Amino acid sequence: MKAWQANIRTVTPYVPGEQPKGGNLIKLNTNENPYPPSPLVKKAIDEMDYDTFRKYPDPSSTVLTKALCEYYQMEEDEIFVGVGSDDVIAMSFLTFFNSEKPVLFPDVSYSFYQVWAELFHIPFETPVLNEHFLIRKEDYYKENGGIIFPNPNAPTGVFMPLSEVEDIIAHNQESVVIVDEAYIDFGGESAAGLIKKYENLLVVQTFSKSRSMAGMRIGFAMGNKELIRALNDVKYSYNSYTMNMPAQVLGAEAVKDDCYFRQTVEKIITTREKAKERLSELGFVFPDSMTNFIFASHKEKKAEDIYLALREKQIFVRYFKQPRLDNYLRITIGTDEEMEKLYDFLEKFL
Amino acid sequence: MKAWQANIRTVTPYVPGEQPKGGNLIKLNTNENPYPPSPLVKKAIDEMDYDTFRKYPDPSSTVLTKALCEYYQMEEDEIFVGVGSDDVIAMSFLTFFNSEKPVLFPDVSYSFYQVWAELFHIPFETPVLNEHFLIRKEDYYKENGGIIFPNPNAPTGVFMPLSEVEDIIAHNQESVVIVDEAYIDFGGESAAGLIKKYENLLVVQTFSKSRSMAGMRIGFAMGNKELIRALNDVKYSYNSYTMNMPAQVLGAEAVKDDCYFRQTVEKIITTREKAKERLSELGFVFPDSMTNFIFASHKEKKAEDIYLALREKQIFVRYFKQPRLDNYLRITIGTDEEMEKLYDFLEKFL
Repeated sequence: MKAWQANIRTVTPYVPGEQPKGGNLIKLNTNENPYPPSPLVKKAIDEMDYDTFRKYPDPSSTVLTKALCEYYQMEEDEIFVGVGSDDVIAMSFLTFFNSEKPVLFPDVSYSFYQVWAELFHIPFETPVLNEHFLIRKEDYYKENGGIIFPNPNAPTGVFMPLSEVEDIIAHNQESVVIVDEAYIDFGGESAAGLIKKYENLLVVQTFSKSRSMAGMRIGFAMGNKELIRALNDVKYSYNSYTMNMPAQVLGAEAVKDDCYFRQTVEKIITTREKAKERLSELGFVFPDSMTNFIFASHKEKKAEDIYLALREKQIFVRYFKQPRLDNYLRITIGTDEEMEKLYDFLEKFL
Repeated sequence: MKAWQANIRTVTPYVPGEQPKGGNLIKLNTNENPYPPSPLVKKAIDEMDYDTFRKYPDPSSTVLTKALCEYYQMEEDEIFVGVGSDDVIAMSFLTFFNSEKPVLFPDVSYSFYQVWAELFHIPFETPVLNEHFLIRKEDYYKENGGIIFPNPNAPTGVFMPLSEVEDIIAHNQESVVIVDEAYIDFGGESAAGLIKKYENLLVVQTFSKSRSMAGMRIGFAMGNKELIRALNDVKYSYNSYTMNMPAQVLGAEAVKDDCYFRQTVEKIITTREKAKERLSELGFVFPDSMTNFIFASHKEKKAEDIYLALREKQIFVRYFKQPRLDNYLRITIGTDEEMEKLYDFLEKFL
């Protein structure tokens, strides 16, 4: 090994889900929204003046932050925006998790948590979900350097009632508790209402799922202004200009169109509820989902076999080849038309 | 102090240059390009399909990386792209500077280097520029945990001949040496040609100045594939999807239009050379600039007074209120028309 190589940070990088390309495929593997963003987004991109690209974007993303404040009834200094919720959460690990004590997150959860902890050399422990894939709140009533969990959880789709979320926060007022609500808009109840009550609570959401803007990379955190100031201080010490101009302008337009947002979410929820019926009829079992995906296991057929058979027909779902999860498929809720094609194939195959 | 506050990372954040707003002002304070991006960028934004925003962007930014490879005659695994060169360099600090020995960078230089070192708890030393604002290469012939310097340097504008850059690299083959070439396209000679010779060399450039894309946030690093792999591993451990779809697509278009790029840079260089004459006539002295700005001090008038007087006339230049720099103005090269207005005012004022 050469000398300069010895000082390279060694990490086990996260592997993103595959992004198959082609016209005729059905993509139910990365929890994207099957519907386009709001027509206001279309209008704004159609009217965008390319000459403005030569200037630095607003470092504080005011137009986007203001739109979010108005929508969520927060103050401007209670919201932080970043390049997807991944950026927001990574920045939060760097900002808040600087204790010698272990950070806690569920063993079956968003796999990036462990990657971030390792990247920043943060100690961590992963309490085990129970046999129904539920978080046991009592596992989080112990000394820790911080807590993070998704609600609803991923890839299980399970929503934890807000009263239990509050129990975890209330038992941990000496730590920053992050509730990662990437999927909250699909039927769950957000913890954002608890921010006024608990100053150690940070709630993170994203535009990638319910707002159809995965390609634009927009995430945000809501919390008391001291947490947000600390996040901004670290952000301004990393990169002053993280949000490019189109993300700011188009993101703000997406937030403004509440009517379209509600309609789209409603359509996905309706399709999901129907999917629960159809998948049950087809012999699948799954924890009840409050997200835009269903985490399903078949009573007879092995998940990997179904995954591969679907793949051959250009229908992509997510399969995790890892302990406890390797007999499940994570199936994103697509359009009704896409889901019918899925059921048609499964009926023949199973 | 509450318990959760004790674990917050404390930093002194970077303060970005002011972004004044309004129609009639002349903005010569943040080294932006006075000309719009390539017409190919305009065409691509006009044709952009907003429906594609609902999908995650390509995590490896293939279309942008390929365009850069073709332009700079590199292989795809020798190029890394990020959210502005700030993101690329911050990621490089995190990836490469993990030694107990101090990282070296000039005392007068891009002020973010110190901010990143403090953010990531990296020890550093800052060798002093000589009285002509030149880097003394011998200052970098000592034990270190890595080296970074801009060439041309900022905010001085001074270009170091490539032979001296090579001397520094050759003397430090046990460290990663980063040459930050944000301003290289305005007349300097890039160190990119040395990458095949020195495996420890990383060259960083940006779309924010010469390619008129500050608002899009695009930077990139070129280096041997082992360095680029290490950077990508850390990037994929931080955020798989840093570059949003518009940045990838519009960035690629900007690179393809070499003719427009050369014309724009040539115009700025011509305006800059004329600015050197005019500013000299007006009683300014400055190190010879190879960038899109001039770092000038007046023989009689105090820099701060000139700065404030200009500001009152809605002409914005950058003033650094810090030791050694506080009698200088950093004046971005604008259009000929903008520069004439600057000279006209200065003639009257001085």
